[in-house]
Amino acid sequence: MSTQLVAVLGRGVVDPETPVLFADDAGLTRGDGCFDTCRVVRDDAGTRVDHLERHLARFAHSAELLSLPAPDLGAWRALIDEATAAWAVPGEAALKLVLTRGPEHTPGTPTGLLLLTAVDGAALARSRRGLRVVTLDRGYASDVFAAAPWLLGGAKSLSYGVNVAAKREATARGADDVLFVSTDGYALEGPTSGLLVAAGGGRLVAVPGGATGVLESVTVGVILEAAGGAGMCAGFELLRPAGLLESRGAWLVSTVRGVCPILQLDGRPMPHDPALTAVLARSAGFEPLATS
Amino acid sequence: MSTQLVAVLGRGVVDPETPVLFADDAGLTRGDGCFDTCRVVRDDAGTRVDHLERHLARFAHSAELLSLPAPDLGAWRALIDEATAAWAVPGEAALKLVLTRGPEHTPGTPTGLLLLTAVDGAALARSRRGLRVVTLDRGYASDVFAAAPWLLGGAKSLSYGVNVAAKREATARGADDVLFVSTDGYALEGPTSGLLVAAGGGRLVAVPGGATGVLESVTVGVILEAAGGAGMCAGFELLRPAGLLESRGAWLVSTVRGVCPILQLDGRPMPHDPALTAVLARSAGFEPLATS
Repeated sequence: MSTQLVAVLGRGVVDPETPVLFADDAGLTRGDGCFDTCRVVRDDAGTRVDHLERHLARFAHSAELLSLPAPDLGAWRALIDEATAAWAVPGEAALKLVLTRGPEHTPGTPTGLLLLTAVDGAALARSRRGLRVVTLDRGYASDVFAAAPWLLGGAKSLSYGVNVAAKREATARGADDVLFVSTDGYALEGPTSGLLVAAGGGRLVAVPGGATGVLESVTVGVILEAAGGAGMCAGFELLRPAGLLESRGAWLVSTVRGVCPILQLDGRPMPHDPALTAVLARSAGFEPLATS
Repeated sequence: MSTQLVAVLGRGVVDPETPVLFADDAGLTRGDGCFDTCRVVRDDAGTRVDHLERHLARFAHSAELLSLPAPDLGAWRALIDEATAAWAVPGEAALKLVLTRGPEHTPGTPTGLLLLTAVDGAALARSRRGLRVVTLDRGYASDVFAAAPWLLGGAKSLSYGVNVAAKREATARGADDVLFVSTDGYALEGPTSGLLVAAGGGRLVAVPGGATGVLESVTVGVILEAAGGAGMCAGFELLRPAGLLESRGAWLVSTVRGVCPILQLDGRPMPHDPALTAVLARSAGFEPLATS
């Protein structure tokens, strides 16, 4: 059973062992494009894509920030339907949507493709039990993106090299993940995750987007809405890493890994309430899978 | 006559109308890879690649900064020989070398490919006559890369989205190109070019690499060496945009476009000495082409 499925916008599902991209695609040669990632769950109840419409909206927003033609969301939904119908791997999977400016030899013809990849359940379980995290300087002040849209703040761009390099740095330091910090000392986000903090006074706090350049996390948004609906005080605020150590707990939150408690920050133990983690995870759709 | 040629490391020259890249190549999905670009000239004297060994050395350095396996430069030279031997388009062309971390489904197998693309001579001639340039905030302080190698300063990475977006911003402002400025007010580089300034006292000045994150420009290096050899005072220094307006002239310098004088900076006229431009261009190999 293949653990990867590839589909191309305008063509449908294709053989994953066949190359699909031209050498001069600007998505490759310049990282000029955007992507979004959804969580796919296949269990006894069937195959579902979590929060698809929110991800499609963010995908379209990223395209707009990059001045790419607006993606035809109807065509993308149809491609996703075809891909998930063909998907037979039980458990959790990552669905990546990629939109590039297309090959340089045919200007004005964006490339759209979709990747569906099975995710190692054991690795997911480890991350969800908790992460050792190191802080790394992101190199930007927390307000630099306000007047500089060409820096592509808030866009999920294919130019992800720094995020990958930061993950390598974490591994080299014996950690599991990274918390980026602004040059003026604020906690921003992980390379592939958003930050959520249980701050003082029962507040559930995420990092504001906009001037910080932080990507709007779909999963953080879902959790904050659920928390607000349940009467918790939920909102956006800039915090310093030292504030996290004094909080009731903090999480790196992402679409596929879910709600991962930070157990150590730069080698110091972090407060952690497993019951609260379970509540937050459930509110974002991360229940134990119903597999027979 | 085709104006594009594609070759793949390990395969040789391929049909440019055939896709060569898997959908899950990390060069596409994460901008995780590096590139370098050389100038190819085909005239009555034959086909030559300018400063090839310097470009290969920079390519290998970029790979090292990205923790990619060191490129086999012998294999790359052979691929370049095969490609240039098959190249029949007279005039100037861009030779792009691309190295990625490779497809996710076959870890540890980097992708290497080469693109040879004819360049529009009229557009080159316009750029070489002079550029209207706008300054744009790069978002980084001029010393931020010193202690943060994960920010990939000095690497010619495939994560080029900000560079492309800055060029779009220049076009939207009615300009030809961009000069990036650090948050502490120093002129850095263009999105695809280095900066060279004829400063006071007959000094020829380029922007230092290292902590600034500025890419080492091969062409700037060639010009500085020639200038030093001719008895000029040539070196590296941080200057502010206001200092450029008071200089004897400034140039955006790149491999393919060559030595392009900045005629306007943020709408203000810049000093320009066409004879000096011609001397600098010739010292980097940009003579009029010998075409019959």
